[in-house]
Amino acid sequence: MTTTVRYANNRPAVSLEETMTLPARYYTDPEVFQRELQAVHLDMWLHAGRTEQLPDAGSYFLVRFAGVNVIVLRDQNGDISAFHNTCRHRGTLLCKEHQGTIPGKIRCPYHAWTYDLEGNLVGAPHMEKVEGFRMQDHPLGKVAAATWDGHVFINLSAQPVPFAEHLAGLDRKFAPWGMADLKCVERRVYHAKANWKLIFQNYSECLHCPIAHPLLNKLSHYMSGDNEPPQPTYLGGRMDLREGVQTLSMNGLSNRPPFPGISAEDRQRVYYYAFLPNFLLNLHPDYMLTFQLWPVAVDQTEIVCEWHFHPDAIAKPDFDPSDAVDFWELTNQQDWELSDRAQEGISNHGYQPGPYSNREELLFGIDRWILERLARRQ
Amino acid sequence: MTTTVRYANNRPAVSLEETMTLPARYYTDPEVFQRELQAVHLDMWLHAGRTEQLPDAGSYFLVRFAGVNVIVLRDQNGDISAFHNTCRHRGTLLCKEHQGTIPGKIRCPYHAWTYDLEGNLVGAPHMEKVEGFRMQDHPLGKVAAATWDGHVFINLSAQPVPFAEHLAGLDRKFAPWGMADLKCVERRVYHAKANWKLIFQNYSECLHCPIAHPLLNKLSHYMSGDNEPPQPTYLGGRMDLREGVQTLSMNGLSNRPPFPGISAEDRQRVYYYAFLPNFLLNLHPDYMLTFQLWPVAVDQTEIVCEWHFHPDAIAKPDFDPSDAVDFWELTNQQDWELSDRAQEGISNHGYQPGPYSNREELLFGIDRWILERLARRQ
Amino acid sequence: MTTTVRYANNRPAVSLEETMTLPARYYTDPEVFQRELQAVHLDMWLHAGRTEQLPDAGSYFLVRFAGVNVIVLRDQNGDISAFHNTCRHRGTLLCKEHQGTIPGKIRCPYHAWTYDLEGNLVGAPHMEKVEGFRMQDHPLGKVAAATWDGHVFINLSAQPVPFAEHLAGLDRKFAPWGMADLKCVERRVYHAKANWKLIFQNYSECLHCPIAHPLLNKLSHYMSGDNEPPQPTYLGGRMDLREGVQTLSMNGLSNRPPFPGISAEDRQRVYYYAFLPNFLLNLHPDYMLTFQLWPVAVDQTEIVCEWHFHPDAIAKPDFDPSDAVDFWELTNQQDWELSDRAQEGISNHGYQPGPYSNREELLFGIDRWILERLARRQ
Repeated sequence: MTTTVRYANNRPAVSLEETMTLPARYYTDPEVFQRELQAVHLDMWLHAGRTEQLPDAGSYFLVRFAGVNVIVLRDQNGDISAFHNTCRHRGTLLCKEHQGTIPGKIRCPYHAWTYDLEGNLVGAPHMEKVEGFRMQDHPLGKVAAATWDGHVFINLSAQPVPFAEHLAGLDRKFAPWGMADLKCVERRVYHAKANWKLIFQNYSECLHCPIAHPLLNKLSHYMSGDNEPPQPTYLGGRMDLREGVQTLSMNGLSNRPPFPGISAEDRQRVYYYAFLPNFLLNLHPDYMLTFQLWPVAVDQTEIVCEWHFHPDAIAKPDFDPSDAVDFWELTNQQDWELSDRAQEGISNHGYQPGPYSNREELLFGIDRWILERLARRQ
Repeated sequence: MTTTVRYANNRPAVSLEETMTLPARYYTDPEVFQRELQAVHLDMWLHAGRTEQLPDAGSYFLVRFAGVNVIVLRDQNGDISAFHNTCRHRGTLLCKEHQGTIPGKIRCPYHAWTYDLEGNLVGAPHMEKVEGFRMQDHPLGKVAAATWDGHVFINLSAQPVPFAEHLAGLDRKFAPWGMADLKCVERRVYHAKANWKLIFQNYSECLHCPIAHPLLNKLSHYMSGDNEPPQPTYLGGRMDLREGVQTLSMNGLSNRPPFPGISAEDRQRVYYYAFLPNFLLNLHPDYMLTFQLWPVAVDQTEIVCEWHFHPDAIAKPDFDPSDAVDFWELTNQQDWELSDRAQEGISNHGYQPGPYSNREELLFGIDRWILERLARRQ
Repeated sequence: MTTTVRYANNRPAVSLEETMTLPARYYTDPEVFQRELQAVHLDMWLHAGRTEQLPDAGSYFLVRFAGVNVIVLRDQNGDISAFHNTCRHRGTLLCKEHQGTIPGKIRCPYHAWTYDLEGNLVGAPHMEKVEGFRMQDHPLGKVAAATWDGHVFINLSAQPVPFAEHLAGLDRKFAPWGMADLKCVERRVYHAKANWKLIFQNYSECLHCPIAHPLLNKLSHYMSGDNEPPQPTYLGGRMDLREGVQTLSMNGLSNRPPFPGISAEDRQRVYYYAFLPNFLLNLHPDYMLTFQLWPVAVDQTEIVCEWHFHPDAIAKPDFDPSDAVDFWELTNQQDWELSDRAQEGISNHGYQPGPYSNREELLFGIDRWILERLARRQ
């Protein structure tokens, strides 16, 4: 007769030599940071926002990080497009407010060069005596944009990989959650004093949960669930809710129904998917939590966290998202505190790389991935 | 029969290839900024202040920017001299207050090395047992100084070009305005988040006036007047006041008489002369406006703006400069806002050089001039 | 018959060529600062604190400066040890509070790696499936520590010079003061905007005393006493109290008895010893003043000043240290003001090295010493 231990470390063993953390410079050197921006953030698809932020033609929001400033808008055809937020005349910033509505045309406030919502230059005063000047040669700088179930992504590369390649089939996997229908009801912005990779690494293992997140661990055992092997564009896993727990909330209960399309199994799970390099997606049975990570400096990251719910749940008179908001506010604060401490300790003169355990395989995956990306650019 | 369009773009055409704005690094790279300081600000004559700030022997003010700190003073002979604000013993800062009066001698507060107002070392306690030490070998570091019609200039170069060469005849041109007699009645200091060249460029064209400065454009048509061709030490032009307009003020009127020496034509004009690299001179029929531009960092410039009037006007019981002060306060704020936006847009990852029009020829002149200055230093 | 001048400049003459101050870059260039940290602060013994700060097993305080973060603690054996404040797993900062008590073990707040007070790794959850992992291979990073008469020193070098070599016999010289018995009653932290060497240089001559410190000069003539020749690890001298003066206090008097062990001569003297590179020790007849200098940046230094008294004096009902505290608060402010002005003047574009007098021989010693240290590292 055999007894099964419910939560055991059954993942394959790793060897010490293969699994050491990165040298400090990957977390502290501004030059490595700039190389990472080139090799990663300026090359890959970035989560920019949600289609509900762009209800009408002319609706826009800005994406700003580390020298990047992009206008994401809905054009006259109803399509979502993105452009560098800089005039083609003398480089003036076109849109200053973080979000708003453009009244038909984008007009530069300096010399009135004017662009339509498709980015075409349609007005350029006093340029008639510049020989060889043609308006069609000076449209706004185009940035690739794509959408998936309500998520808007942009890509700053001159030759973006196909968006479908970036999604790598996760669109099919997560179709049952019907994310396109969901609405954001809360948005919080955090400023971590930590390198962006430390936020990813913190997200990608739950060994710290019993120590740092007692409430989370009470609702969802830190050894439950399993991870996919690391992928080129994402790292993902899931964890089980404990018996009697309905969702991640302050008391583990929810008065919201589960999403209509998901299976009975998935009503007892939370999915944690990290889309490299800036999007974290938590799918609970009854709400979606999203994080955008914006690298600000080698040791600073801006984190935008949003709580999204089903419109039917929102429409109910007793709708109250605070159980979910409070739960993650608590958990987020615990995580950013740890990430800040990791940044401080790695910046210490006395830091040296240490060994990951075999349950931190996603972190080792991130490290290998960043090294490969940087090497490719050399 | 021919109809003449009053304000037409009659300047010569330019070709697209010749007139592109500079690459971003000239506005964003701290190393280019340091090279510019060497090639430009540490080599050319800089507007430092006005002689009225130095009424008596011992009167002084400081010139401080980007690592430079110079004492400008009136010496015992009544001459204006300038010295590095650092003791020749151990380098201590000598004068701390921005302006004041030195009581006869400059005494270092650390070890009492003492200099007369001509910069000679006249006291050096405890140096008698240093073999080879002679007081005459350790005067204050001399900085060249010159004056023109009440304006004080300094030059930090070891071998300054003659000041007359810098003025290039403008002293004769502007003699009728009698600037030496004028008195400053208002001084305002602005901190632009923009490279110093962007302030110059903003100053050197009025195509933005109908868009950004509706009041200015109502008083003085943006296509009126004309520019001189760009010169090695200055860029200048003039604009006409519209009919019935007496000066640039909130209502276009003035209860001050025009300057006594100027011609009837010049009573209907405003002159805009940019003395490279730090002095902007606006001559209105009844007042003088001056700007000093002090580079602080590649993306920061301190701007000192002063309003100067004729003593006879000031002496009148109903003298009130606020119509002129308010007009330029409004216009200045509009210009610094645009310059800041230009800095932000040029700093954008998506910026690329764009074409100037044929009416932005002074800006293209500035760009060529800075490239030549930098090349000469290579 | 001969008349003796009491305070004359009887030190040997120096030659001008040999005694010029250092070029500006030694005070302004961040790269020189980093090289100095390597050649000096990461190589030499640093004053870290006092044994009275570590009364019990588990008591600790942190040493933090310029990328260094070290835990100094008393271990289970009663010994004082020091460790890099960073976990050997993923580099997390272990202790966050500046001082406190560790309850038996140091546990990382991230994944609960646990160390005993001797630095041994005694707990590493989930590492059992990492092949080749042995806890004994991952102790906390050790930092050398040593004590002398109540003073705690640390050394960050991999191969520290013997501590006795650093003390160079000063432990015998200052044994009569019984420093181990003294207790700190006041601690003040200052933030100078000056390179750390300028604080040392300010400390190492009293020519500025009659100018900057009139009260100090009234109690102790600036030409009194004498210096030792510069040593590889310290610079020291003493000055005499004037007749009738009992100590350095606001009125020159003290109601505290002199330290029991010191000679009659030393009851009329103050010793000023600068232990390179971060410890200044002032021994008065009845109290000890200590300074720690922590380099923060090339132009910033944190200074920790402490006043220490004999327990018998402290125990007296009329004990009041404010006469000594106020005296040095006044003097400190005067000195930091001068050091800040020296930094500002040396940072001036117009600075050039100047000559030391023959009574600034310790400063010239510091300069030579830093050049030798840097050269050794090339």
